[in-house]
Amino acid sequence: MSIDLKNSVGIVETKSLDITLPAEGFLLESGNSLAEVTVAYETYGKLNAEGNNVIFICHALTGDAHVAGYANDDAASKGWWDEMVGPGKGIDTDYYHVVCANILGGCSGTTGPSSNNPATGKPYGSSFPHFTVTDVVNLHHIFLNQLGINKIAALIGASFGGMQAIEMSLTYPSMIEHCICIASAASLSAQALSFDIVGRTAITSDPNWNGGDYYESDNNPDNGLSLARKIGHITYLSPAIMMSKFGREKNREGLDIEALKETFLSDFEVESYLDHQGDKFVGRFDANSYLCITKAMDEFDVEERYGSLDEAFSKVECKMLVVALTSDWLFPPYQSQLVANSLLRMGKHVSYATLCAPHGHDAFLVDVEHLSEMIRAFLPWVGPRYNGKSDSSIAVTESRDTVQSDEYDRILKMMKPGSKVLDLGCGNGDLLSFLTENSIDNGIGIDIDVRNVIEVIDKGYAVFQDDIDSGLAMIADDTYDYAILGETLQVVRKPRLLMKEMLRVAKEGIVLFPNFGKWSHRLHLLRTGRMPKGGAIPFEWYDTPNIHPFTVRDFVDLCAEDDIQIVDMVCMTSGVVDSVLVRLGLCNAGANRILVKVAKQDSVAL
Amino acid sequence: MSIDLKNSVGIVETKSLDITLPAEGFLLESGNSLAEVTVAYETYGKLNAEGNNVIFICHALTGDAHVAGYANDDAASKGWWDEMVGPGKGIDTDYYHVVCANILGGCSGTTGPSSNNPATGKPYGSSFPHFTVTDVVNLHHIFLNQLGINKIAALIGASFGGMQAIEMSLTYPSMIEHCICIASAASLSAQALSFDIVGRTAITSDPNWNGGDYYESDNNPDNGLSLARKIGHITYLSPAIMMSKFGREKNREGLDIEALKETFLSDFEVESYLDHQGDKFVGRFDANSYLCITKAMDEFDVEERYGSLDEAFSKVECKMLVVALTSDWLFPPYQSQLVANSLLRMGKHVSYATLCAPHGHDAFLVDVEHLSEMIRAFLPWVGPRYNGKSDSSIAVTESRDTVQSDEYDRILKMMKPGSKVLDLGCGNGDLLSFLTENSIDNGIGIDIDVRNVIEVIDKGYAVFQDDIDSGLAMIADDTYDYAILGETLQVVRKPRLLMKEMLRVAKEGIVLFPNFGKWSHRLHLLRTGRMPKGGAIPFEWYDTPNIHPFTVRDFVDLCAEDDIQIVDMVCMTSGVVDSVLVRLGLCNAGANRILVKVAKQDSVAL
Repeated sequence: MSIDLKNSVGIVETKSLDITLPAEGFLLESGNSLAEVTVAYETYGKLNAEGNNVIFICHALTGDAHVAGYANDDAASKGWWDEMVGPGKGIDTDYYHVVCANILGGCSGTTGPSSNNPATGKPYGSSFPHFTVTDVVNLHHIFLNQLGINKIAALIGASFGGMQAIEMSLTYPSMIEHCICIASAASLSAQALSFDIVGRTAITSDPNWNGGDYYESDNNPDNGLSLARKIGHITYLSPAIMMSKFGREKNREGLDIEALKETFLSDFEVESYLDHQGDKFVGRFDANSYLCITKAMDEFDVEERYGSLDEAFSKVECKMLVVALTSDWLFPPYQSQLVANSLLRMGKHVSYATLCAPHGHDAFLVDVEHLSEMIRAFLPWVGPRYNGKSDSSIAVTESRDTVQSDEYDRILKMMKPGSKVLDLGCGNGDLLSFLTENSIDNGIGIDIDVRNVIEVIDKGYAVFQDDIDSGLAMIADDTYDYAILGETLQVVRKPRLLMKEMLRVAKEGIVLFPNFGKWSHRLHLLRTGRMPKGGAIPFEWYDTPNIHPFTVRDFVDLCAEDDIQIVDMVCMTSGVVDSVLVRLGLCNAGANRILVKVAKQDSVAL
Repeated sequence: MSIDLKNSVGIVETKSLDITLPAEGFLLESGNSLAEVTVAYETYGKLNAEGNNVIFICHALTGDAHVAGYANDDAASKGWWDEMVGPGKGIDTDYYHVVCANILGGCSGTTGPSSNNPATGKPYGSSFPHFTVTDVVNLHHIFLNQLGINKIAALIGASFGGMQAIEMSLTYPSMIEHCICIASAASLSAQALSFDIVGRTAITSDPNWNGGDYYESDNNPDNGLSLARKIGHITYLSPAIMMSKFGREKNREGLDIEALKETFLSDFEVESYLDHQGDKFVGRFDANSYLCITKAMDEFDVEERYGSLDEAFSKVECKMLVVALTSDWLFPPYQSQLVANSLLRMGKHVSYATLCAPHGHDAFLVDVEHLSEMIRAFLPWVGPRYNGKSDSSIAVTESRDTVQSDEYDRILKMMKPGSKVLDLGCGNGDLLSFLTENSIDNGIGIDIDVRNVIEVIDKGYAVFQDDIDSGLAMIADDTYDYAILGETLQVVRKPRLLMKEMLRVAKEGIVLFPNFGKWSHRLHLLRTGRMPKGGAIPFEWYDTPNIHPFTVRDFVDLCAEDDIQIVDMVCMTSGVVDSVLVRLGLCNAGANRILVKVAKQDSVAL
């Protein structure tokens, strides 16, 4: 196979840095130390003069420093995240200086159990000291400093790399400006722990493992390591992708079926696949590295170390983007949500999204389309504007129509400058943009649509991808000054509950809704005997998103029943504020849309 | 621990039957044969005089004949499905004669690899012949015949037991009257295959396995078997139950933490749990049995054997109940649906349900409450009426109110006797009961609520638990004479699509809906400026299930637009059919509810 250098960083070389250490060596959390440490790393793109374009990538469990490009002219030597990193790609090496280093304990150039122990001149083997994710991150920190890097524009990690990114943003918060944590968690689930446990047992049960000292024997614990890798590979794929890739297909080519029966091997393609993965892994990875890195991953537990997630994430100083993958069952989305929700509670700038990715956990390597867009949208600006980063806030201001503009103005008038705002069903973030341009800060949006979420991130605002029909449990009481429900209340399953939730998380609520009680709708139903349609309600009955339409009076009744005070009400007719209607008490009959400011009965300070 | 004999079949004994075989022995599909075969089995409850109360239970992968009661006075000797089988339980031994036999290849009394080979006087080991699920079922068949049983009132199997039940209902269809297939599949998924593959590799990689001939050595392949069992146990539990049972809890009692670090063991409770499961299994199971039974399970493939699922399930003669478990990821619900859908396509009497069961695949052993009810409802009647089997059809007839009764009469009048009916959103099956009492046969219902599904099954009708909002893809075109949408069209997300689907699967549709166009609703909106409420629409706007309300005229318009012919229309006012309204053309203004019979434009034969 020949290699394709289009949009590639090209042929790259893994470099080595011998870390300059103090007399006591590199100290580990356990109290042990390493007298000598070498770090293997790669870099792509140029460090700019301001030094503000460094992206540091933390690799996953069995990854290495070779992220992008090719090690040689063999196509198989492609970097593990070449889809993401390169000129014009999600992480654009035309603008950013990308750095990745093999982790402590690894077997791809950085000091690990298979490295020579300077004290004995032989491989460490069983004498390699126990280490933690904090040790891994501490070494990265020293390495970056000795490389002359003191500021990370963006720290990015997926899976176990995401755990390192979390730990780094907690241990060295001032060093990091942006952090992207993909398909990861603040600790492994019991199920993920279990798979690691059986994987390690497979290795340590292999007689060739010999307690970890096998480097000088002729036999490595290949069977055990291969078995551990096979278990791992099952967990990296979604069941659906396994079914579509292999299903129950058989491949009898070159197999002796009768012999298979005796050995209990099978001719299923999925068995060949697992065998192939096991064999390949044995050729490139070290069993002791696998043991000690999985152990460090298993023991990583933000909650245990810091007392609670909130206690931990209160330390974060950077902007965070937390991304989960729908079909990932090894690091399931709820674990990413725990991280994002805690950051949100702690008042950090955090965005969260669950990307639709059929491949399972491995999707961050292969289903990169939306992920690339999202990363590009989130990364800090370091060059002239380029394709992927449109000047959307300007475009939006221009495209905003008069109706919307009038409504936006009225919403703005209902707020005090400098307020914290939550936009429930924020769409593409136009309202957040408008409010921010007009000195309402700290806006955050919630929207269910991933395209909207990417747009909001691109505009620089925090946003959570979520279905507000499932509640706002991730938000603490009284977190915001205002929560906005713009054309949203009538489309949700449980409008009454959402009103209560809105006034739990915000001091005041601002609700904009189409008025089903407008005289034209009433007369339409009366005269034609058909469901109202037209004006603010342009949908047919059978495909309207307005599944809980209501009138101004219905809204007022509900507020009375639920002890909600109506602080302000604005009637809009044909996009214009109609104060006459309010004075005459004719909102219900006259208004197309209603804009209401509400508050809990007991909390209103008039 | 002392044993509790309340509702227990008591202390039971596993019996043995030496099968009488022809000269060629017990022939296997492979062409090999076994000269001698013994079957271990247990029975509970008495065979009645009619011989129509036999329930045959097929056990799962590592189960045995000891289903219920205790083997001795140790509580740990309780049968594996004692929660389900006993006096007054789901499978009630006061009425049924329950039989279970250890399967071919097992290690709990039935001939398997650890049994003595009569030809050598030594255990079979590696010489035990390869066998299939069909061989397992053939042996069950011979065994039952030699026990004097020729008719199975109900065949029940879960997991691998469900596969045996499927195969038995295909191979010996006339022998079986009812079949219940729980948390099973017509073949394993690629993911489930993979777990079996790595489990077998763990055993065959164990040097003590010795190609299968270890019975005469001092060392068994315990490490490998234990590892395989640990992998299995992870797949038997849902991730949520693992998290709630073990989480990341640590148990340092009696452990040397420093030593653990060196051996790469951990102090996580989930590791102790897996160790315990592995150790326990090694004490009761044989590695070769595990190898050959998992192999038979992996190779089980109804589609491959019969050409297609439909080809296979066309052979079924019994009534079928297919049950899946929500959190089961080893035999995920879609696999049970494939079985049920095929049976439905083949016109069989089949019910399907997905039980909400948090425990994962193992839930059939532990979350038995709804499962017991469902099984009891489905089992054929063999004694006087007892608690769990209420005479619900009588109760319902009595409780039916006049309004409903009038509507039912009108629905009946719209149908030809002997028609096939599909009731979409069938509730508790009252309408199906009523129609059946009045010579409309072959009714089947669809409902989303499990309590309704159990009631419908208890009444003797076939029912699918499903959300009709997700479509009717499992039903072939023109399967039914009539499909009924009783008070359902206005509550679904996509009413227009559902109308089309209804007329795809049925020749004609019968739709009953509340009329939003009634004069009182129109005047209510006009005069009060509030959303209509009252009469057939008794809900508040914020919690109405009627998310797509519509008027008679709206309905007529949609029919016109979608080429749907209105064959008949009945107006109901205060529960009474009002033919005057129809004659005067005042349905829209006058009717509370409307009953319409519709058909595709081109298919109406008037």
